[in-house]
Amino acid sequence: MSPSLIYHVTSSLDGYIARPDGRLDWFDAERQADEEYSFQYFYTGIDSLLMGRMTYEALLAKGGTWPYPGKPCVVLTRSELPRASSDIQLTHCTPAQAIAALREAGFQRTWLVGGGSLAGTCYAAGLIDEIVINLAPHLLGAGIRLFATGLERSLQLSDQRRFNNGTLQLHYRVLNQQAAALPLPASHHNAA
Amino acid sequence: MSPSLIYHVTSSLDGYIARPDGRLDWFDAERQADEEYSFQYFYTGIDSLLMGRMTYEALLAKGGTWPYPGKPCVVLTRSELPRASSDIQLTHCTPAQAIAALREAGFQRTWLVGGGSLAGTCYAAGLIDEIVINLAPHLLGAGIRLFATGLERSLQLSDQRRFNNGTLQLHYRVLNQQAAALPLPASHHNAA
Repeated sequence: MSPSLIYHVTSSLDGYIARPDGRLDWFDAERQADEEYSFQYFYTGIDSLLMGRMTYEALLAKGGTWPYPGKPCVVLTRSELPRASSDIQLTHCTPAQAIAALREAGFQRTWLVGGGSLAGTCYAAGLIDEIVINLAPHLLGAGIRLFATGLERSLQLSDQRRFNNGTLQLHYRVLNQQAAALPLPASHHNAA
Repeated sequence: MSPSLIYHVTSSLDGYIARPDGRLDWFDAERQADEEYSFQYFYTGIDSLLMGRMTYEALLAKGGTWPYPGKPCVVLTRSELPRASSDIQLTHCTPAQAIAALREAGFQRTWLVGGGSLAGTCYAAGLIDEIVINLAPHLLGAGIRLFATGLERSLQLSDQRRFNNGTLQLHYRVLNQQAAALPLPASHHNAA
């Protein structure tokens, strides 16, 4: 399996990842029943984490024990921040450099955590290989968009799972070709 | 089964139903392999159609034989327009009145066709009972939103199907309760 940067986020059916003010209450209630299960299904498949400052600070503010022990977590930031765990490395470099360093160290499947500007940067730079969406059975109406960059990409659905509360976990690979240039092979029409 | 108004539309993963200029080319290529199959799966489950003027005019402009024979089609419009089929009824009334007339005549499952203003009106009025989304494996980046009304609704996932090209057909029921007031029943946590 080739190395992957994986963006994992919960989205409403209409493509929002949070309310306009950032609140996640709309799916917190729905998540309780299955968060453990659906998250574990995803988490066992990754071996490293990458996040930006805002996501890291939000986790620090939440307090308690570090929720992602045993897997290296690279936090991209210029700021001096406390390390909540020995797994955390604070570094000031580009996402591409951080990913390269993880690969050098043998880590293959990196979870890009959070829905902030780092995800948009990585997406625009073509660094995201996989997208795992928890598609919640909810229309939010307004909010922070899944991707705000305005870029078009074709995807390949690789897995889908349904959880008790009607949330679907969808696994996509990001295709590199320009969407407009992607031909459908003739045999595709007859694929089982 | 109780009567239903069903909104059926293809959406990108990031919640757009067309490019900003209305073009649908982004999924036309992807659809060819499975459009017949996935559409038939939906179409056999409806017995009537409701559409607005813009959708009807687009179908007239496309020409050819009327694509929805054998099922009554109510077109809401003030305009004098040609009837492309004896199944078509042009009428000037509210969506609620049109739906009531269909129910009176014994039609139970009405497809709300198109992505225009009529869908937004019906959604805002609480008239949509089910939403069937063809979720395409595509990030469009910008475009006409799935629902532009800014209203929040909770949904219940009732069916999901995967088609060859990675499109998922998702069937949701629209829940009537205010999203914020919807409690999760204790037994829900243990549902199989």
